[in-house]
Amino acid sequence: MSDETRLDDDDVTLAERPEEAARPDDRLDDERLDEENTLKPDYVRRVRDALEAGENGTVYDLVEPLHPADIADLFELCEADERALLAVAISDLMGSEVIAELNDYVREDMMEALDPEAVATIVEQLETDDAVQLIEDLDEEDQQAVLAEVEAEDRVAIESALSYPEETAGRLMSRNFVAVPEHLTVGQLIDFLRAEDDLPTEFYEVFIVDASHHPVGTCALGWVLTTPRNIALSDVMKRDQTLIPVMLDQEEVALMFQKYNLISAAVIDEDGRLVGQMTVDDIVHIISEEAGEDTLLLSGAGDGDINEPIRDAYSARVRWLVANLGTALVASLIIAAFGAAIEKLVALAILMPIVASIGGNAGTQTMAVTVRAIATNQLTRSNTGRILWRETRVAFLNGITISVLIGAATAAIFTPTLGAVIAAAMIINLLTAGLAGVLVPVAFERLDQDPAVASSVFVTMITDSMGFFAFLGLAVASGLAN
Amino acid sequence: MSDETRLDDDDVTLAERPEEAARPDDRLDDERLDEENTLKPDYVRRVRDALEAGENGTVYDLVEPLHPADIADLFELCEADERALLAVAISDLMGSEVIAELNDYVREDMMEALDPEAVATIVEQLETDDAVQLIEDLDEEDQQAVLAEVEAEDRVAIESALSYPEETAGRLMSRNFVAVPEHLTVGQLIDFLRAEDDLPTEFYEVFIVDASHHPVGTCALGWVLTTPRNIALSDVMKRDQTLIPVMLDQEEVALMFQKYNLISAAVIDEDGRLVGQMTVDDIVHIISEEAGEDTLLLSGAGDGDINEPIRDAYSARVRWLVANLGTALVASLIIAAFGAAIEKLVALAILMPIVASIGGNAGTQTMAVTVRAIATNQLTRSNTGRILWRETRVAFLNGITISVLIGAATAAIFTPTLGAVIAAAMIINLLTAGLAGVLVPVAFERLDQDPAVASSVFVTMITDSMGFFAFLGLAVASGLAN
Repeated sequence: MSDETRLDDDDVTLAERPEEAARPDDRLDDERLDEENTLKPDYVRRVRDALEAGENGTVYDLVEPLHPADIADLFELCEADERALLAVAISDLMGSEVIAELNDYVREDMMEALDPEAVATIVEQLETDDAVQLIEDLDEEDQQAVLAEVEAEDRVAIESALSYPEETAGRLMSRNFVAVPEHLTVGQLIDFLRAEDDLPTEFYEVFIVDASHHPVGTCALGWVLTTPRNIALSDVMKRDQTLIPVMLDQEEVALMFQKYNLISAAVIDEDGRLVGQMTVDDIVHIISEEAGEDTLLLSGAGDGDINEPIRDAYSARVRWLVANLGTALVASLIIAAFGAAIEKLVALAILMPIVASIGGNAGTQTMAVTVRAIATNQLTRSNTGRILWRETRVAFLNGITISVLIGAATAAIFTPTLGAVIAAAMIINLLTAGLAGVLVPVAFERLDQDPAVASSVFVTMITDSMGFFAFLGLAVASGLAN
Repeated sequence: MSDETRLDDDDVTLAERPEEAARPDDRLDDERLDEENTLKPDYVRRVRDALEAGENGTVYDLVEPLHPADIADLFELCEADERALLAVAISDLMGSEVIAELNDYVREDMMEALDPEAVATIVEQLETDDAVQLIEDLDEEDQQAVLAEVEAEDRVAIESALSYPEETAGRLMSRNFVAVPEHLTVGQLIDFLRAEDDLPTEFYEVFIVDASHHPVGTCALGWVLTTPRNIALSDVMKRDQTLIPVMLDQEEVALMFQKYNLISAAVIDEDGRLVGQMTVDDIVHIISEEAGEDTLLLSGAGDGDINEPIRDAYSARVRWLVANLGTALVASLIIAAFGAAIEKLVALAILMPIVASIGGNAGTQTMAVTVRAIATNQLTRSNTGRILWRETRVAFLNGITISVLIGAATAAIFTPTLGAVIAAAMIINLLTAGLAGVLVPVAFERLDQDPAVASSVFVTMITDSMGFFAFLGLAVASGLAN
């Protein structure tokens, strides 16, 4: 859209000078984007001021030169109530690319505000996979209302996608791809492509199929272009290809794209027939989401999206805090059992949080490493024992270092015996933390649970309890609080 | 390599049946890979047993059918001392793809074990960007020794890449790309590509440049193939393209690829001249690394790679534990200031870890959300205020919920006054945690520090100290410990 020339406007903006649109610094160094390629606060402020003042013409002129992905960002940076105003002001810039790039929560909000006909108009502009993403957010009733407005061909494709579970290849794949029989030559393929109208907007390889539509090979467009016309496709195609089963989870799909450096791949049904393709540009978002979500899951922040409604954020997080209250109570019970000792030696109360705190942190470190290694398929049954042994040694080294520091300081400030007690408790707790940090996520993985979701609660409970128990128990055993 | 037929071998393996290599379930359902596409423990065990028994022929036959990425995985799953044995047993399968897919630490280990000539032989097989990744691991002296063995043309390209800082586009880009003048027609471009020998193995678009080698547009191979031969490139090319400055950090490059859904992009030097290209298959690894590394950095686990040498893992993690010891001491000082109160009322010692623990967790939740939003460019100066207000409200809701629970329980078990004290302390600490969870990472970001690295220490210190201070202080103020 920034290629268009708008002659009815006096302001000269970048988009109105198409002959300069390729100036190297266009997108990187202009008045709208900063060096990190995000919209400048000044610019966002001007758009919002114009929105509030009801100056829709100004808003349009400000927004029009933006790339669709930046328009999507602009929506996210506006307050919820400004988004509807913005959509009205720039309605003819609200193309499919903007919708596809919007944050899920922001898009869901906006879709719910629109009537089914308006949603249907947007859906028809979108590629099937983007349309599915938009429709799956709606509730059943709205879905039906929108689908009723959509053309039959699109509707069939969308309903087919929705028939697969969320986050599977069948839901995410594109049903528009190029598949040709293997007897074609390179020249015949090029002629076919030139004659064909309904090609995907983006494709990077041609799939070669046999008579029953089973994929037998794949041919990158680069090879097609660099091979003489008279060569048979079967002589240039690569036979060894990565095929994605239609029911495969998106996380596994993403790992396959990463592992085998794929740009696109064929999706096959249960009978091995080619039914769709996945391209890396769709996978990139999944890779980022899946890799980033562990950070949020481990902290117990749920989806952790800053656009998530407050009630959802609250309910995701409070659940974990309540679970944590439970584990904290276990720790308190252990402290309570040593109440008499604490009354006699208040130094125990002063020092005990240190043991638990360092143990908790060491456990979190090991757990983060383990969860990440499981997520990237680096930690498997083949090497679990080795990793456990590795983490034990790291924990032992950490334990020695921290014990010496805290033991010496405690001995100097309080008594040498208390120093020895806290040093011993620290080594015990760091070894416990190392073992728990590996074993808890591995156990959840073997039980087919996401190790990122539930591990923190357990690891924290183990390190907190063990920290207090080891320290207070050793103190009593050594006769410190008699 | 799996297309080759080895006639000197009686065992029939998949790779020896090229005509069947496209059987849909080849890669997904065979005796070597499980349903998550990782090597089965049984299979790894057999390879390792054969290695230990010195049966190199058996090892070769077992490994030969694997995809290079799976051979790389196999190396990682073996113990360090088995890796050298494996490399010897399958030396002619150790192609560039295997080397490129190896984990950094494993590759570094193996490179250090080889002499410069052997490394140089591998380097010459690799694309420049993979070769650079391999060489940058070596120390200066070894680098020079390897480069001396490499052919002049490759050496120049590698030295040029090494002249850019690590993790910039200049270091990572491929110097092999297709750039043509804009006066060509589609037919002339195809003829040029067919005649040209030295084309990149992977390319997805052709860059159109002017006489001074400035990029003026880009043409996806799909468009070239579907456009009649007599059309001028300048009529089919896209003028609006995303250009990557050669000094841009890889994290920003990855965000640009995600934001604009790029498959490849031109890299330009300071004068705007085309100097290289980046393709999404290189970026996918960076996206995954950058998104995953926050999990590890927030936990203070450094690189957190399970292949990292133990001494490196120890030094990365102990640093953070020592920092944490410092923050725990601050908390202890606060407790010590209330020593007299604790001696009078030991219930304070029993309950005080609860306030700090829940506060710490709430702070971690908010911090994880904030760090992730900063990393994905969703949190900018334009919406910091809104996010702060949003997190304050979530913190308040969490605070009310947790306060009611712990307040009621404490009132029942101990006294109503102590219940009120802990409830009030909990709300104060959760609000503090919410504010610190946003403000600390944002402050580090504005100071150009990575918020994932340093935020945890500060947020933990703030929530621990505030938790103990609020609870013990309110207890004293309410006359509980007089």
